[in-house]
Amino acid sequence: MDENRLKGTGPGNVFRGPRLLPHENRTLPETAKCTRCRKRAVIALPSHHANFCEECFVVFFRRAVLRAMKHFPIRPDEPILVAVSGGKDSLAAWAVLQDLGYRTRGVHLNLGIPTFSEASQEAIAAFATARNLPWVSYSLRDLLGYSIPEIRRRIRRPICSVCGMIKRRLLNRLAIREGLRVIATGHNLDDEAGRLLGNLVRNRREYIEKQSPYLPSVHPQLPEKIKPLYRVSADEIRTYCRVHGIAYLEGACPLSRGATSHMFKEALDMLEGKMPGTKRDFLFAYLDARTASKAVDDFGTCDRCGEPCYGSRCSVCALLERLREPEQSQGSA
Amino acid sequence: MDENRLKGTGPGNVFRGPRLLPHENRTLPETAKCTRCRKRAVIALPSHHANFCEECFVVFFRRAVLRAMKHFPIRPDEPILVAVSGGKDSLAAWAVLQDLGYRTRGVHLNLGIPTFSEASQEAIAAFATARNLPWVSYSLRDLLGYSIPEIRRRIRRPICSVCGMIKRRLLNRLAIREGLRVIATGHNLDDEAGRLLGNLVRNRREYIEKQSPYLPSVHPQLPEKIKPLYRVSADEIRTYCRVHGIAYLEGACPLSRGATSHMFKEALDMLEGKMPGTKRDFLFAYLDARTASKAVDDFGTCDRCGEPCYGSRCSVCALLERLREPEQSQGSA
Repeated sequence: MDENRLKGTGPGNVFRGPRLLPHENRTLPETAKCTRCRKRAVIALPSHHANFCEECFVVFFRRAVLRAMKHFPIRPDEPILVAVSGGKDSLAAWAVLQDLGYRTRGVHLNLGIPTFSEASQEAIAAFATARNLPWVSYSLRDLLGYSIPEIRRRIRRPICSVCGMIKRRLLNRLAIREGLRVIATGHNLDDEAGRLLGNLVRNRREYIEKQSPYLPSVHPQLPEKIKPLYRVSADEIRTYCRVHGIAYLEGACPLSRGATSHMFKEALDMLEGKMPGTKRDFLFAYLDARTASKAVDDFGTCDRCGEPCYGSRCSVCALLERLREPEQSQGSA
Repeated sequence: MDENRLKGTGPGNVFRGPRLLPHENRTLPETAKCTRCRKRAVIALPSHHANFCEECFVVFFRRAVLRAMKHFPIRPDEPILVAVSGGKDSLAAWAVLQDLGYRTRGVHLNLGIPTFSEASQEAIAAFATARNLPWVSYSLRDLLGYSIPEIRRRIRRPICSVCGMIKRRLLNRLAIREGLRVIATGHNLDDEAGRLLGNLVRNRREYIEKQSPYLPSVHPQLPEKIKPLYRVSADEIRTYCRVHGIAYLEGACPLSRGATSHMFKEALDMLEGKMPGTKRDFLFAYLDARTASKAVDDFGTCDRCGEPCYGSRCSVCALLERLREPEQSQGSA
């Protein structure tokens, strides 16, 4: 591993030292007191009407994750497979679950995106080595025969939705293969609120009903899914990483430029800036009001790979069939 | 009336001449053809994937309003009371309803906001005189004993919501007094989509269910309410006013600075700029999916003024009681 890449000289990969982050650089006067311990506050959280010193911020952050975990019907000794990308969210999720005493293992899916995927894997390796945490990496090319850039060249659908589908499906399978029944992902408050806004604005009712920080297992071959960070914002996670010296891969995936998910998050950021707390109130009011996610019992089995799916062919096998068609027949169906 | 105020020299009151408006100043090449007639196009409507010449834009605009009117169960010969403020929306609504052959009368509620309310009344007078249209103006101070600035000084609630309540209630009463059964307001696509977004983000379910471009009469003393412009955007209305030489009062009410409704519209404008058509799809999908507004039959009668209301005291009388309390007891209830 090139050590420099985690120290700010490599592309897109930055070590976060002790200096304040841009979003923390608010003008907290020297007299500002920590809301918890009354020592000097250095972190302003307007959406919580609170200022914290670093120690108390960590307490606040862990409590928010613990509160999320208490919403999930997971036994405290249940081992958790943490899906890690090397970004701030998944590494913070892994770190805090470990701190809270959960047994964890990391799993990484190498998507084969030049530079980005290598940097991603290096960030995970550095994090796991420093903390002596077990993890495993799988290559999409080994598992499916294609990397994400190869799939992107051969299909016409937006790559983000295809990539999301692949990651969901393969992580389910890898969890079962690794013998674990629970997958944790790094989705945060901004992700969940942005997704909710996008689904509301585009009137995607079937997705709105399915959106939840906890998804139960609805089939013996499907693990439970949890989002331990759904109560903390992207900025709070950045601060947590800085305070804990977690070096993470910065910046969005280079293939996600122009993704609509970014736009809905931006719209919410604008509202949050003017009305602090909007994002949280929006998501939590929705989660409080919704009825529990109904278990889906109309699963079939894919007649190619034997995995659980709706109908008789799973989305991964359907995609693979399409990728294996001769190039010239693409798009004629 | 000071003629200059409608020619761009008065405060906030601007005559729109034939030059292109900022939102129209898109780089339509000289070769751009009108989507309808193939003559040279000068108006770009990316949300409709259309470019228009001025004549065809007017056809498009009138058809959008006619389509809205066909959604409302209003007889074509039913006279309509148009609530006018002197702004682009209400004057355009009045103009197009008149053009479509409806019998209309304008009604203006002078709120007593210095400069703004005078300019408002002058814009209406100029419009109505040029077109020989009947209208009537009432002063809030005459009707209630207080102007909006006076009410604002004496209450602690945000003035926009109080002012909205007063206008709704008084317009209902004035319609009955004028002998008309239908009130039209100038609410446009941006207003309705912004309001929907605000109610969704703040989880105001009771308001979401009531939001509709048509509200039936639910009591003999309450008129029907229609929003003829709910299918056209603020920018489209500005263009319509420019093409028709309608001089309107520009700019928001000076007391509405910082109103949250502006922020939700701004968030939608951002999304619309990146994904043209978002606003319309958002609002129309919601309107298509919702069930018809249920008639409310649990009306009582205000025991002070005899007007229909929920419970035994109408909001206007409740406000007046509060305003008449001695100043020092304010906020003690």
